[in-house]
Amino acid sequence: MRAKVRILDVFSGRYSVFINEEEAKKAKLHPDDLVKVESGKKTIYGSLAISNLVGPGEVGVSRDVLQLHSLSEGEVVTLTPVGTPESVRYIKKKMHGEKLRKVEIEAIVRDIVDRKLRDIEISSFVTALEINGLDMDEIAALTIAMAETGDMLDIDRKPIMDVHSIGGVPGNKTNILVVPIVAAAGLTIPKTSSRAITSAAGTADVVEVFTNVSFSLDEIKRIVEKVGACLVWGGALNLAPADDITIKAERALSVDPRGLMLASIMSKKYAMGSQYVLIDIPTGKGVKVETMDEARALARDFIELGKRLGQYVEVAITYGGQPIGHTVGPALEAREALSALMTGKGPGSLIEKALGLAGILLEMGGVAPAGMGKKMAREILESGKAYEKMKEIIEEQGGDPNIKPEDIQIGDKTYTFTAPTSGYVTGIDNRAITGIARAAGAPEDKGAGLELYVKVGEKVKEGDPLFTIHAESEARLDQAIVFARRTEPIKIEGMVLQRIGNI
Amino acid sequence: MRAKVRILDVFSGRYSVFINEEEAKKAKLHPDDLVKVESGKKTIYGSLAISNLVGPGEVGVSRDVLQLHSLSEGEVVTLTPVGTPESVRYIKKKMHGEKLRKVEIEAIVRDIVDRKLRDIEISSFVTALEINGLDMDEIAALTIAMAETGDMLDIDRKPIMDVHSIGGVPGNKTNILVVPIVAAAGLTIPKTSSRAITSAAGTADVVEVFTNVSFSLDEIKRIVEKVGACLVWGGALNLAPADDITIKAERALSVDPRGLMLASIMSKKYAMGSQYVLIDIPTGKGVKVETMDEARALARDFIELGKRLGQYVEVAITYGGQPIGHTVGPALEAREALSALMTGKGPGSLIEKALGLAGILLEMGGVAPAGMGKKMAREILESGKAYEKMKEIIEEQGGDPNIKPEDIQIGDKTYTFTAPTSGYVTGIDNRAITGIARAAGAPEDKGAGLELYVKVGEKVKEGDPLFTIHAESEARLDQAIVFARRTEPIKIEGMVLQRIGNI
Repeated sequence: MRAKVRILDVFSGRYSVFINEEEAKKAKLHPDDLVKVESGKKTIYGSLAISNLVGPGEVGVSRDVLQLHSLSEGEVVTLTPVGTPESVRYIKKKMHGEKLRKVEIEAIVRDIVDRKLRDIEISSFVTALEINGLDMDEIAALTIAMAETGDMLDIDRKPIMDVHSIGGVPGNKTNILVVPIVAAAGLTIPKTSSRAITSAAGTADVVEVFTNVSFSLDEIKRIVEKVGACLVWGGALNLAPADDITIKAERALSVDPRGLMLASIMSKKYAMGSQYVLIDIPTGKGVKVETMDEARALARDFIELGKRLGQYVEVAITYGGQPIGHTVGPALEAREALSALMTGKGPGSLIEKALGLAGILLEMGGVAPAGMGKKMAREILESGKAYEKMKEIIEEQGGDPNIKPEDIQIGDKTYTFTAPTSGYVTGIDNRAITGIARAAGAPEDKGAGLELYVKVGEKVKEGDPLFTIHAESEARLDQAIVFARRTEPIKIEGMVLQRIGNI
Repeated sequence: MRAKVRILDVFSGRYSVFINEEEAKKAKLHPDDLVKVESGKKTIYGSLAISNLVGPGEVGVSRDVLQLHSLSEGEVVTLTPVGTPESVRYIKKKMHGEKLRKVEIEAIVRDIVDRKLRDIEISSFVTALEINGLDMDEIAALTIAMAETGDMLDIDRKPIMDVHSIGGVPGNKTNILVVPIVAAAGLTIPKTSSRAITSAAGTADVVEVFTNVSFSLDEIKRIVEKVGACLVWGGALNLAPADDITIKAERALSVDPRGLMLASIMSKKYAMGSQYVLIDIPTGKGVKVETMDEARALARDFIELGKRLGQYVEVAITYGGQPIGHTVGPALEAREALSALMTGKGPGSLIEKALGLAGILLEMGGVAPAGMGKKMAREILESGKAYEKMKEIIEEQGGDPNIKPEDIQIGDKTYTFTAPTSGYVTGIDNRAITGIARAAGAPEDKGAGLELYVKVGEKVKEGDPLFTIHAESEARLDQAIVFARRTEPIKIEGMVLQRIGNI
């Protein structure tokens, strides 16, 4: 049918297309049928909703559609029902344990991005991957298909470096130091980061405290070609958009199929044109990867996948058993990172990790001889060159390059927990720390989070401060205190944890 | 939040719950979040949509909700976000190949019926079942859980018989003969049927031509307690409602996991209180079950499942390689079935199959000695007792018991295909026959369908009529003719199909 577009003020979480009850009856269409809306060169797939909010001759579209497509009120479109997409056959093939061909994977990814596949089909694909897996040929095809169905960056500089941390460690502002160090050495590093999903602060949330992070790909190209680096939010870009769609099913099912996880990370690096990629795998209790064996297996997969993509990948397995540095939460972490860049000093867990990662990148990029990368990284940090580069990045991204750590506002509603007993800190619970910071309002309330005064292995006396919660409102502070009381994030005991006799 | 209900004129194919943009922001809620709407004892789970079609202090609900729940305009409700349901963990267990416990299966089914699980989770469950399967313990638990989460019939008569045909054969009006024969012998048979989904006419569509088929469970109880039988539409009842929900994912993925299929059929028999169940498995080219081996394996599963449910199950494997009888389409089939009941005569494929099935039921129910069921069924049919019983059923269900086959209106736009050559009919393509009848307008246009003049093995001369298409409009007739020309549903060849020499 031909009809005029009406934009309906609805966000439904999917592309919803509304038609009138009478017309639905005539056309034998039912709620949730897959339909195609065409206008000129635009084709949009959506789920039908039937409603007399639109009259005869009208096609309503939910605002979800407008985030990617430009449809305007009154525009003439044709609406037609669509049968089962061909790619459903390939999903079935994977269900039945068969290996998928490159063109089949491309069809699935294309249909995901085009919204021809919806929750049911995408969830089935994710589930089939969780059960039957993908081999490296399939993962490489998936990665490239995910990249190529989105926008891609083409920067006229070489080599292009990248660094990515597998999430999970609270307070991980490391890459905010790594990027300016690497760029100060003359390498190019267009770093995109995510916002917090389940954590208290993603790198993008932290950087946003002192400069803008939302740019178009063209703007990023300009920034990076000028200063050699950026620290931007990847979510504002149309990089590997299939990933943003499949993640909904993965989250609902709390699964993260290996092949999809690898493709999700590497497709974004591929789309950014990265040639040398360092993957940081924090390993330890309460993060994604808990054991060294798992970390090593994952490392091999990243390296192998990199080869298929024509990328040189190295992996750093780092300690993720407790928070990095002393702060958790966007503004608190921004302060800590900025201060470390300015003074070259800070908590060992932050400085040493950042220098370690930056050093590997300097060696990978060929600006430091083998084994000399970390030393060179330290010189760049301590000489203030990294800080100068950071000021350039901040300025190019529209922030005030002269911002000082103390200019950054942090939550002024505070509460400090003290040691209930003397002894050694035997453990800091990553999940509890994240939970407290989120209860205090992070990441939405930038000033919310917590400051840690102790780390694992340190000795404390009864009454010593352990950590201070910061919040922007009393209500959130109270919530965080309740959460902290319940979870007891810092464990203190006598040093003897377990004594085993002759067995 | 507390708010007043507003019924929104939207059918979205899911339970949609709308709140205002401002309130969504305050409550940190996002499109498609799972939310709970509570009012007194009612609890409804739905997917959040954000829209300024509702104001502050209002909660909009889509009309989908009203099909099962009574919410009224202005009613005060509370809306709260809901985390991941516990049953998602059990779906994951099945993904990982583990056997599910009874309570876990019950939790999944309960959450499906409560709409706490949505497309993503249900599709994942269906996919995990397709890949990892269910054993008989799990299938039995699933069957009972599906029955017990819906309404159940409690008829004060014994024994209760039932018959079910696995779909796929066009023209299968057999059970319209079986039910009155069995009831005329004094047995109780509360038969529920489905409407056509992909076929040209479900039993319920055919029966509806001469009497009503939509009743409440209480009305069915009254009808069956009075006349010993009914022929009603199961879809109007709340029998095993989880099945109606999971079928959406099964259809989109075109999968039909064995365990779910068995549970879907048997849960409805269980809910109807059936104690003796005959399963008819039509087998042949172009139906669900194509080989005898498959049919036998399926038969064993039905019998075994019946044992776990405390039901006595027998299976009849019948020939499904061509249409049953000479008609396809609701009104045409209703004519043929009624005429067979009135005269005791009709196409062999219809009469013999009906008597065979009825005979088995008479023996199962203990009213015919072993081996004598079919003979007794024939006597009941030929004596007119089955027709008398049918008149009682028609009357109790609100139809005219004196209706004659010729009173039934059939599509008056017709076109007859003739034999293009002389020879033997070597095959009739079930799928093509169904396709033609549907192209002609069946099942919505009751008078649409086709009449077959020949069956496999018959000899025809060039120019002999093969079949007549009936439609209610010229447009649909033309569509059906085009479809028939393309598919050539009846194959005529010399009798020698293949000659094989000494190998």
